[in-house]
Amino acid sequence: MTKDHRPKARAAKGFRDIGPDEIRGIRAMLAKIQGVYESYGFEPVEQPFVEYTDALGKFLPDQDRPNAGVFSFQDDDDQWLSLRYDLTAPLARYVAENSQKIPTPYRSYRQGWVFRNEKPGPGRFRQFMQFDADTVGSASPAADAEVCMMAADTMEALGLERGQYRINVNNRKIIDGVMISIGVSGPEQTARRLTIMRAMDKYDRLGEEGTRLLLGPGRKDESGDFTAGAELDSSQIEKLIMLLRFGDVYSSIQSGAYEGRQYKFPNPFTNPPNEWEVYEQGTVSYLVAMKVAVQGVNPTNKKYEWSFGLDVLGEIPAVFEMNATLAAGIHELAEMDELFSKAGYTPEQIVINPSIIRGLEYYTGPVFECELLMETKDEEGRTVRFGSVGGGGRYDDLVARFTGQQVPATGFSIGVSRLYSALNMIGKAEESAMLAPVVVLVMDKDRQGDYWRMVQSLRNATDEDGNPTPIRAEMYVGTAGMKAQMKYADKRGAPLVIIQGGNEKAKGEVQIKDLRLGSELSQGIASREEYASQRLAQFSVPEADMVAAVKKALAQS
Amino acid sequence: MTKDHRPKARAAKGFRDIGPDEIRGIRAMLAKIQGVYESYGFEPVEQPFVEYTDALGKFLPDQDRPNAGVFSFQDDDDQWLSLRYDLTAPLARYVAENSQKIPTPYRSYRQGWVFRNEKPGPGRFRQFMQFDADTVGSASPAADAEVCMMAADTMEALGLERGQYRINVNNRKIIDGVMISIGVSGPEQTARRLTIMRAMDKYDRLGEEGTRLLLGPGRKDESGDFTAGAELDSSQIEKLIMLLRFGDVYSSIQSGAYEGRQYKFPNPFTNPPNEWEVYEQGTVSYLVAMKVAVQGVNPTNKKYEWSFGLDVLGEIPAVFEMNATLAAGIHELAEMDELFSKAGYTPEQIVINPSIIRGLEYYTGPVFECELLMETKDEEGRTVRFGSVGGGGRYDDLVARFTGQQVPATGFSIGVSRLYSALNMIGKAEESAMLAPVVVLVMDKDRQGDYWRMVQSLRNATDEDGNPTPIRAEMYVGTAGMKAQMKYADKRGAPLVIIQGGNEKAKGEVQIKDLRLGSELSQGIASREEYASQRLAQFSVPEADMVAAVKKALAQS
Repeated sequence: MTKDHRPKARAAKGFRDIGPDEIRGIRAMLAKIQGVYESYGFEPVEQPFVEYTDALGKFLPDQDRPNAGVFSFQDDDDQWLSLRYDLTAPLARYVAENSQKIPTPYRSYRQGWVFRNEKPGPGRFRQFMQFDADTVGSASPAADAEVCMMAADTMEALGLERGQYRINVNNRKIIDGVMISIGVSGPEQTARRLTIMRAMDKYDRLGEEGTRLLLGPGRKDESGDFTAGAELDSSQIEKLIMLLRFGDVYSSIQSGAYEGRQYKFPNPFTNPPNEWEVYEQGTVSYLVAMKVAVQGVNPTNKKYEWSFGLDVLGEIPAVFEMNATLAAGIHELAEMDELFSKAGYTPEQIVINPSIIRGLEYYTGPVFECELLMETKDEEGRTVRFGSVGGGGRYDDLVARFTGQQVPATGFSIGVSRLYSALNMIGKAEESAMLAPVVVLVMDKDRQGDYWRMVQSLRNATDEDGNPTPIRAEMYVGTAGMKAQMKYADKRGAPLVIIQGGNEKAKGEVQIKDLRLGSELSQGIASREEYASQRLAQFSVPEADMVAAVKKALAQS
Repeated sequence: MTKDHRPKARAAKGFRDIGPDEIRGIRAMLAKIQGVYESYGFEPVEQPFVEYTDALGKFLPDQDRPNAGVFSFQDDDDQWLSLRYDLTAPLARYVAENSQKIPTPYRSYRQGWVFRNEKPGPGRFRQFMQFDADTVGSASPAADAEVCMMAADTMEALGLERGQYRINVNNRKIIDGVMISIGVSGPEQTARRLTIMRAMDKYDRLGEEGTRLLLGPGRKDESGDFTAGAELDSSQIEKLIMLLRFGDVYSSIQSGAYEGRQYKFPNPFTNPPNEWEVYEQGTVSYLVAMKVAVQGVNPTNKKYEWSFGLDVLGEIPAVFEMNATLAAGIHELAEMDELFSKAGYTPEQIVINPSIIRGLEYYTGPVFECELLMETKDEEGRTVRFGSVGGGGRYDDLVARFTGQQVPATGFSIGVSRLYSALNMIGKAEESAMLAPVVVLVMDKDRQGDYWRMVQSLRNATDEDGNPTPIRAEMYVGTAGMKAQMKYADKRGAPLVIIQGGNEKAKGEVQIKDLRLGSELSQGIASREEYASQRLAQFSVPEADMVAAVKKALAQS
């Protein structure tokens, strides 16, 4: 092939190769997650990587091509196919196709790569792995609660401690209910509600003023780009801002910003906020706080009793006009919260948190997010919380797309790479740096058979009771000389090399050379004398004692 | 969404869903393969699913669209992307891109899904998994031999016995050398050589006459479809037929068709074949047989000495005109064969077999195939060998596509689904039918917290020393009544259900119901009396003894 026709060797834009440490680390992490999900009785199932585009919901009527955001191509019968962009849409297709065969509720888990046809950026790839668990066929908040508790158990199985992770729970019906109460309802306002949710999702970053602009006339950012707004009026906007502010206050309480047995926090439902007193940190759950807020009760100096019946909802006054959706949202959260607390989970592990929005359109009830609280640096070097490593929620309408019949469903999805980065950061990733193999050098090409038997004896090593204790070992299979072989062993990170030239062979011996000593010395970690007193860099043993000598040398590391 | 716009729930053509038993079985199988590859010192590496089409070699100059056979789509910058169709082409791209960073030889393994845009058929899918190991950067036949020995070790690690599998080895240079000797050489005859190899690959199925037609004028099959031939003349054709016949004879010897200490086999290099005598089964290696053939030696009544120096090649007479390519092929096989035998592998495990062709264009030296010898039925109910579950070979030109510099490389690829089917067939697949979970029924929705604590105590079960012995358990998370819950547990395959209604609660007890008894009875496996004498279908225990009672009941299965 002439030079002109030679392709350039490069990974495609937004795609990447993955090396041994990450592969082994993620493999160990996935096995632990599987262990938890299996113990809960969830069963594995896998859907293919390719689905009909319409089955993924990425084909709108009256369009010629699939939506942006997915990789799509036409089959030979002209049907459009797409690479899956998440694991939920294919599951919905699977459930709709196999509804007669599967038990209900159907509790399953799956892991796999998904693909987004989006602009890649630093740490943002077009292929990434998700690990999902879903319960299909149950409308009970117990199913949502189970998924949240399983997520908490998973974080602890991975070695995270209390205070390092938190499962935040909210309910889309509360946001929907508030939308109804401010008059943004009905199918013709679907797009507008999505704009509102996206605006609210940016509250953390933009603050009240920026969010007000996105909820109203729109906002121009620093670079001059204009984002269209939801065109709400100021009374509508203020109610949404109060909801966000309430979430803010609530998060501050949870994170311990109001210290002491007696403390005050602002009533977010007045403008400007008044101060309230609440006396015991940790007892203020979202639901209690919301009840207090909407009832206008000031719980100063009394332990607020947990009791949340539907009767209370009738008392809710003026900030939000009560409606069935809002009531259902509060009620579902109450039921989940009760199960969390009776099952022994603390607010440190799982907490109802009104600041959780989740951008996806298809959620219809409880939504959750697994947040890691450890600090890290953002792209600009500022100290921030690590943040979300997974999330999910209830999606009662996804299966109905196919069948017309609503099938309630809820699930949780872990972002595998992100979670792995976090575990690595805090030193809780599996010890993935497997010991590199012992390398047996080829000193005499005609004696490759002998060298091969040496690596075999290392791989087949056993302990005194005959149990396998295999030692990773390889014979050099290249064609280069001794010097290049040593360089190879070094680049490979081999702890030891085994050498048997003609002299050693004549004496029935092998030489064992410790490369770790060499690299430690060259890194200036210790003087040659210090090491020499402890062990020899190179020594000979009878060939029959090779395996034992290698074992001993490796144990010294 | 109105009915007209509802998509049909169906997996895309040629793609399939995978259930729990297969997922768990394949997971266990992959772990064992990984174990062997890791012990050899191969390191895992993964390339992405999507590559630039030209990097995969599926874009020929002067073409507007990628080749058929791959799924391709255009990126937003108009560059063509394709789903990988194997794991070798992406590895070649990776090596070319990272040649400075990786050790040489570079020994790595990878597993993953690949995609073919081909017509699906029964058992033939457009997404399937491969497990590859490759050594890049060594031209030594030791690297090829290592991959073959590792394949043999892998089969044994998976529980296959001697005689159930065989690694067949051949060398593309022998076929290429024979082509040179019959005058089919040079780049302008590339397509013709491929036609010849494909024709030879069909010898098993079509026999001599059918193959003669494909090597000559072409062949019309039973359905009337015409396949164009290689247009060779009859003297060329007869030489290739002799080579195939030689392979045939050789395979027959290996499979024991010529029984007894003294036996005869036909000399395939005469037309019609004469009979030869060779006296000891198993001593006739391919190379010896070929030497015998080309030298015209009849080794009757003497043990043929193994010795194959390049000097012998000079004596090779008229059947094939000797050339450097043919000599190199024979020499490489001799070196591999020596290593196999010195490392202690027998011809029952790894054998030089001239009938192995391998259809892929890019092989340049040794080729191998892992054949399973167990019998099974083909689509028409005939008894046949299970056949190939993997293969590979040397591909010295793949990296040169990018860099212009030849980088020697060799590798072996396992067809994961096919190997798993074979293991399943002979009962050597991992016990993948994991015990279904114990189901705790929800008798009183307000007491979900209590039921939850029951499943937690089962999941957290320990032995007497406090070591975890978790029992898979779930609380029913649906909304249906008792009868539907029992039906659910049954459909789920739950061994036991735990019931605690108001009465049991009042007495501090739980009921344990053994569903296996019910299903065994209903299958007529035993009479109610037989089982009742051994154990009770349903019994009550104090709630504090629940975990112990469940353990005991499960142990009785």
